[in-house]
Formats: sequence, C-alpha cells, structure tokens
Amino acid sequence: MCDAESVHIDLNADVGESFGAWRLGDDEAMLQVVTSANVACGFHAGDPLTLKHTCEQAARRGVAIGAQVGYRDLVGFGRRFLDVASDELQADILYQLGALDAMCRAAGTRLSYVRPHGALYHVVATNDGQARALLEALCAYDDSLALLHQAGSLVARRARLRGVRVVAEAFADRAYLPDGRLIPRGREGAVCHDPEEAAARMVRLVRDGVITAVDGTDVRVDVESICTTGDNAGAAALALAVRSALEAEGIEVNAFTKTT
Amino acid sequence: MCDAESVHIDLNADVGESFGAWRLGDDEAMLQVVTSANVACGFHAGDPLTLKHTCEQAARRGVAIGAQVGYRDLVGFGRRFLDVASDELQADILYQLGALDAMCRAAGTRLSYVRPHGALYHVVATNDGQARALLEALCAYDDSLALLHQAGSLVARRARLRGVRVVAEAFADRAYLPDGRLIPRGREGAVCHDPEEAAARMVRLVRDGVITAVDGTDVRVDVESICTTGDNAGAAALALAVRSALEAEGIEVNAFTKTT
Amino acid sequence: MCDAESVHIDLNADVGESFGAWRLGDDEAMLQVVTSANVACGFHAGDPLTLKHTCEQAARRGVAIGAQVGYRDLVGFGRRFLDVASDELQADILYQLGALDAMCRAAGTRLSYVRPHGALYHVVATNDGQARALLEALCAYDDSLALLHQAGSLVARRARLRGVRVVAEAFADRAYLPDGRLIPRGREGAVCHDPEEAAARMVRLVRDGVITAVDGTDVRVDVESICTTGDNAGAAALALAVRSALEAEGIEVNAFTKTT
Amino acid sequence: MCDAESVHIDLNADVGESFGAWRLGDDEAMLQVVTSANVACGFHAGDPLTLKHTCEQAARRGVAIGAQVGYRDLVGFGRRFLDVASDELQADILYQLGALDAMCRAAGTRLSYVRPHGALYHVVATNDGQARALLEALCAYDDSLALLHQAGSLVARRARLRGVRVVAEAFADRAYLPDGRLIPRGREGAVCHDPEEAAARMVRLVRDGVITAVDGTDVRVDVESICTTGDNAGAAALALAVRSALEAEGIEVNAFTKTT
Repeated sequence: MCDAESVHIDLNADVGESFGAWRLGDDEAMLQVVTSANVACGFHAGDPLTLKHTCEQAARRGVAIGAQVGYRDLVGFGRRFLDVASDELQADILYQLGALDAMCRAAGTRLSYVRPHGALYHVVATNDGQARALLEALCAYDDSLALLHQAGSLVARRARLRGVRVVAEAFADRAYLPDGRLIPRGREGAVCHDPEEAAARMVRLVRDGVITAVDGTDVRVDVESICTTGDNAGAAALALAVRSALEAEGIEVNAFTKTT
Repeated sequence: MCDAESVHIDLNADVGESFGAWRLGDDEAMLQVVTSANVACGFHAGDPLTLKHTCEQAARRGVAIGAQVGYRDLVGFGRRFLDVASDELQADILYQLGALDAMCRAAGTRLSYVRPHGALYHVVATNDGQARALLEALCAYDDSLALLHQAGSLVARRARLRGVRVVAEAFADRAYLPDGRLIPRGREGAVCHDPEEAAARMVRLVRDGVITAVDGTDVRVDVESICTTGDNAGAAALALAVRSALEAEGIEVNAFTKTT
Repeated sequence: MCDAESVHIDLNADVGESFGAWRLGDDEAMLQVVTSANVACGFHAGDPLTLKHTCEQAARRGVAIGAQVGYRDLVGFGRRFLDVASDELQADILYQLGALDAMCRAAGTRLSYVRPHGALYHVVATNDGQARALLEALCAYDDSLALLHQAGSLVARRARLRGVRVVAEAFADRAYLPDGRLIPRGREGAVCHDPEEAAARMVRLVRDGVITAVDGTDVRVDVESICTTGDNAGAAALALAVRSALEAEGIEVNAFTKTT
Repeated sequence: MCDAESVHIDLNADVGESFGAWRLGDDEAMLQVVTSANVACGFHAGDPLTLKHTCEQAARRGVAIGAQVGYRDLVGFGRRFLDVASDELQADILYQLGALDAMCRAAGTRLSYVRPHGALYHVVATNDGQARALLEALCAYDDSLALLHQAGSLVARRARLRGVRVVAEAFADRAYLPDGRLIPRGREGAVCHDPEEAAARMVRLVRDGVITAVDGTDVRVDVESICTTGDNAGAAALALAVRSALEAEGIEVNAFTKTT
C-alpha cells in the first residue's frame, strides 16, 4: 500500500441516497472530499434522477464510482436482513449494477467497483449463498470491477480466489476490538463522534498501518480505503477532517482505482 | 424492406412480464416463434430473476432483445398515463436500459433496441417532452440501439432526425383506419380475435405492403416488424399462426437486427 | 369442537392475491367452497381494487373475512424472512388490518380474524419479537379479532394468555410427523397431491380428531379450521374435494366465526 | 364562521410525510401549532411506523387527524398526475383511509376528515371521475368524515350535494388572483416567502373575510381553515407566525372538528 516516496489512501463515502422528495446527506460537499463514491442503486435508496445527477457530479470531479448495491427494501433502507435466495440476489445485484452503470455512461464514465450496503454488507461477510450471489453478479457483469469490503470477510476471501481485486477498508468513525473486528454498532463506544480524534487515528493507520484498539493495544489493519460515512448528519465534516489531517501529514488522497 | 429474392420480416412480442410469484404469458412458447423479444425492465413488470432467465432463453435461441421500457407503475402495469417530467423520465429509462442490458451481458449478448410499453408507447407518439426523454436516454446509453415504434409517430420522426434507426411495426391483431392509424382499443372491431384472419392480413402486408382497412380500402403500411402481442391469453397462438402463414408463403422471418 | 349432534368444521383459503394485471388463483371458485377467506392486504399481494372486489364477493356469499397479513415484500410474495423490528412490524400489521377492514366496511361487513402469511406465519411460531408485534397490532386494532394459526405455536400460546381467541388449523394437503408437526415443505412426501386422499384424511381428522402421520401412527390434532390452500394450481379442486367428502359424512362446514 | 363573540379558525398542515430513513418536515414543532393534521397515508409518503407515531403525537395534543390521501407514487411524492381509473382510485383511497384510521384507533382517536394531496388535490378540483372516486371512498368508509378542500372546487360542490361536510381552506403562503383563485405555483409572486406578511394577510382574512389579491383589490374568501404547509423548510415557522398573529388579535385557533 505504501512506499517511502508515496504514502497514499482512498477515501470512500455513501452518496446518491436521496429518494424523490426526500433528501439525505450533503452529496455536493462529500464529493468535494472523497475519492471514491459509493452510489446507491435504487433498491434501498436512490431514485434514477438522483443517481444520474450524482454520477455526473462524481464524474466531473474525477471521483471513482462504485455501486452501493443492497436489498430490495426501500422502507428499511437496506438495513434489515432479507432471506433472499442466491439466484434472486444475484439477479437483483446484476440489475442494480447495470442500472447504475447506465448513469455512469451517460456521465461519460464507467462503474469501477462494488460495495454492498447495510445488512447485505454484513451478511456477505459470513453467509455463503449471499456472498456467492454478489460475486456471481460482479463477475457476470464485469470481472474487472473491484470489491470494496473488510479484509478477511468471507466475500473478500472468495473474491480473491476468483481473481477479483479486493480493496480493504477501515471505518473512520468506528472503534476496533484487539482482534481487528469492529465493536458492534449499538454497543458503548462503538462510534467515535469526534472528527479530530477519528482523523488522528486514520493518519496513524495510513502512516504506520496500525489502529489503537479499544483496550489500548495496537492492531495491524491493512487497508487501501477509508470509509468516511457515518450515521450522523456530520458525515461530510468527518470526511473533511480526515482528509485534512491526512494531507497535513503529506499523505496523498487518491482513488484506489488509480493504483494497483 | 423487400427485394425480389428475399422477402423477410421480423416478429416481435412482449415477454419477461412475470413478477415474483405472478406468472404472465407463455414466454417459452413465444420465444420459439418470434425473432425479437421486447423484455420488460422492472418498472411496470418483470422482476430481475425473470428478466435474467428471459434474456438467457432469448440469447440461446438467437432472438434479438429489446428493452420494453415503461412508467414506474407496477400495479398499473405501465398502462396509465403518468405526467412525469422529462428529466425524470429520461433517468427512469436510462436506468431500465442499463438494468436490462446487464441481464443481456450475463447471457452473453447485448441489448439491440428499445420499445416503449403501454401508456408510454402512446404518449411518445405525440408528447414532445416524453418523446425527447426517451430519445435522450436511448442516445445517452447507446446510440446504435434501434427504436421500435409506429411509423410516423412523433418519437419516430424525431429519432430519424437524430440518426437513430427506426423500425416501424404493424400490429397483427389490430384493425386499421383508412389513414393508417389503428382503431382505438375498446372500440367495436378494434381487435381481430381470429389468428387465421390476422395471419392472412399479415401475409398480405409483408408481400404487398398493404393492409385492408376497416372500410375495405387498402392502406399502404411500410413496416419491418410485426407485433404479435395481444391482450388475450392466446398471444403465443397468434404469433405462431402469423409465423406459419408467412413461412408458408416463402417469407423469411428474421430479426430486423440482422438486416439494415 | 364437536358434540354428538353437530360435528362441524371451518374451511379457510388464501384469496385476493392477484396484483394489478397479474391474476393468481381462482377466487370465485374458492369463495364458493370455503367458509373463511384469508384476504391478502397489499404488502405481499393484493392491490386495493382486488381486495375490494374479493371482500364484496366474500360478503355476498357469507364467507368470513380474515386479514392475510405479511411482510412488505411484493416481489418475494411474503415468503422470505425479513428481519423487521418489532415496532415496525406492529405498525405494518396495523396498517394492513385497517386497510383490509376498510374494504370489509365498503362491502357491508367487518374483519373477523387475522392469519399471518408466508414467512411471517412460520416466524411468529417461534420468534418472540415478531409474535408480540402481531399480537400488539391485533389487540390495538380490535381485540375481538380471532387469530388463525397452528395449535401450540408461540403466537398461539401468547394469544391465549392475552385472551385472544385462537383458532387452530390443519393443512389439508400436508403430511404430518408423529409429533403433530408438519413435514417441512421441500422434503420428500411433505405435500399430498391427491385431493381424494387429502379429503379422506380430513374427514378422519374432523370425525375422530386424529390424522395419520407419515409413519402410520395416529396423531391427535385438535382443530377448528382446515386450510385448503396449496401451492398448486388445483387449490380450488382440493378445497372442493375436502368439502364434498366432509359433507358426505354429514359434517357441517361452517365459518368458525359462527361458533364460539 | 364568525360571530361577534368568538372569531375562530382552524390551522392545518401536512405531517407524517417521512419515509423510512428519510425525514421530512418538523412534525413535532408543527403539531404544537396546528389544530388539524393532514397525515400522509403511505401511498405517496409516510411509512406505517411514522404514521403511527404521528397519530399518537397528534392525539396526545388534541390535534384532529385527517387523511392526506394521494396517488400511489412514492418517488413522485404524489405530485404527478396519474391517469388512474375511477374504480381503482376509489379502492386506493379506501385502502388509505382504513390504514390511517387503524393508526388513529391505536392512538385512541379516530379519523376526522380527508384532504387529497399533491396532484390529486388539483385534479379533483376539476376531474369528474377522480372527484367521484374520492367521494365514493369517503362515503363508503364513513360519511361523517369532512372534506377539506378549496371552496368552489368540483369535489367540494359534489360533496355538498351528497351531504358531506366541506371545510374550505385558504393558503397562508400563496398569492391570490382577483377572482379568488391562486396564482399558479411557479409563476412570479405565487408564493409569499415572508411569514410576517403571510400572517398579516391571514389575520385580515379571518377578521374581515377578505384577502388582498395580487392586483391590490380585496377578494372575499370564506374559509374555516388555513393551510400552513409551504414547500419550504420553514413550514413550522410560517405556521407559528400565523398562529401568533391570529392569537394576538384575539382570534381563537381551534380544530374545525370542534365547530359545526
């Protein structure tokens, strides 16, 4: 990930999650900060016109576009586990990839990667049928697409075996256990609400490859991207704090698609 | 359309219109008869798994695949006018084109053409904003896609001006007015329920370029495709009757995508 | 359930499951046979106009109307587990109860009972949060509504504790294990495809209170209703076979709402 | 509407329009100001849990609850004309009335009135089939429900003929033509963005029964309610300014349901 001359990292965030009259997030601010945009695909968030505008903005700024694929569950925002059969999920994901890529084409660019959203993100970390469905869809659509996920997850391991590029990510606002896993959301101390503290931890992560776990020990975490999306309204502020701190340390912030 | 050596015609029909547990039409039978398949795209009909299977079947049989794009109105099956703004409709159609093309890719083929469905079919024949939205979407996605519509419609005229290939179609089961327009559905005699009679009229249409209007006069109708979809359960039977009659007359039935 | 003079039983079936252009089941035939109609509520099946017509037909024939409530999952027909939070599920079910009861009112009748559908049926048999959500919704709406479910399920036991009338049902076309549970769908021999055989078993069940399990032993099953819905196209035929066999034995077929 | 002792008026506003993860409007602030709450019903806005919470809050504050019925068009927020057949629309509205009333019941209250939303509001002002559908649904559900609409609209006239109570409303933030109609949205000067100015005009309206039209002339407008919903984020501020100004003039602000 890093050599002496050039330490660099990618910043990703969720965008394009508005739906019709309902606005969510400050995409314009976010797209000025991050280098990779996880754009919703319409099944759990994102109406077509929002997706089109988001892809146009991202393309204009040179931000790489990834497909934020999710369950077909608008009212649940894709956050609820859905026991969908593997072949149905594969088709659902294929559908979303094509739909979002059409928006990329209209914006003069192409889809670069896939990042599952919400419950699906967590499920493919361990569920064989759903992990396979995601990879089948990715490969059937375009096997040069990267997969953005956590290092060591089931879907990441399987992807590597199939020759799919896996980009590992850390979470800017999340606390880690000594074994490298996240403290489950909802537990005390799971989320770091201070942008400056989050930023300082991310600088250390990129520079030294370690993150301080909740018990004070150092955990080795090897990532190519940092997810700056939080649940809070201040997601863009978090992203900006992280980016500023990284750049102040001389770390280049570049889309992972520009490195290999 | 025809030279002395090779009189040929394309047969198209709507398929892929099932949704989840709800089956509609006999796609397997239909795909054995027609040469172009108007596959639903999920907004008014067609769940992703159905679309994937339908594209696989079509690809296996060498049937050309077109995007049956429509309004976002599942319960209304796309048959109700929706006053959607031009930029929203453009994005809706782009989304559908990309989604269906993903299914084509997974089946080893690509989208060949676009045919609007239901109310949208009729609206783009006269409504400027919606006709333009359809063409913008088509061109933004892939301007080599053909447009399947009625000769002389607003969208067909505009498409020609933009250099989009327009494929004109006749309706196998519909009665014509002396000026070449269809008798509006719902009026007495609008629909021909006898497959043999419909087939005989289509043979004459392809061989001689004329169709007998409701008043007995001959109308010149110049088409490259025949739409064999009816509202009735016997759509596949109608398609088969038309194909058999055409072939009995030595007329070749080929996808219009194979001619230029 | 039965005294010497009058042995009687209720027959229930799923109806109102069409959606827009998509037809499912032969509701007209079914409503001539059954005494209780589990009418879909629009979340997994049933558009409002279908629900209205179905309630009108049921009311005309004196068939009791129950709410076939389910997950918000149209494309999955409510057959896929959805990990919905208890408060959300309670609101979803309340919404469905009110919506269907409006159709009952317009038809001059009222909702009589609730029967969960598909995956929800099975989940509330064991899942505490979802079982409670169902009962909270039922009681908040109208605690004189009965609950139609399997004897001994978690939701049935909890309902009894709250004073909700529980109506236990048997399945006409399903095979039973010696402990009274059903053989899981998908396993060899789970479904009885022969209407006559199913009918004969139901006669024995009503007359003698026992059903022959898969191993040939008799299982005591105490029910007030028989569910005649199968997955097969011949659901109405199965219902008719069961009703005819029961009546031939002098068993009265009456809505359970008419008994207490 | 007013006698010497007691000049009073109702204030209504749209609430319950959030959907899943998407928040819209400040319902808590609004329900502290208005006396009648137009609660969305789930077809164009409002998920069941939001509706339940909104009805609970309204009930707690003694705010009357009306059904904000609309087209089945979530992504369009009910703002786009949909050419739905009269019987389908009637069923759609019945469904929504029952669903929302279930939330009222669970909150210990009942539905008081109906107010169509968005495009439907405008369409029933002139479209016979859709106006009739709305009234059929209202009467089939509960003919003691009032209809909240503009004086003189087609649906209002028809409602009066059927004996349905019609409550006429003015719009706090809209400019009027000399003939009493609104300046169409989108035209210069259609919307009054200054809460104080809007409030002053509403005071004059309630006290004197007149509103100053765009050309400076006085228009006689006879209303029982003032709609304080604006498109802008400051809807609750507008409502508060109107309420404060009315009360400062000694005008009582009461739900119209409390007067007859």
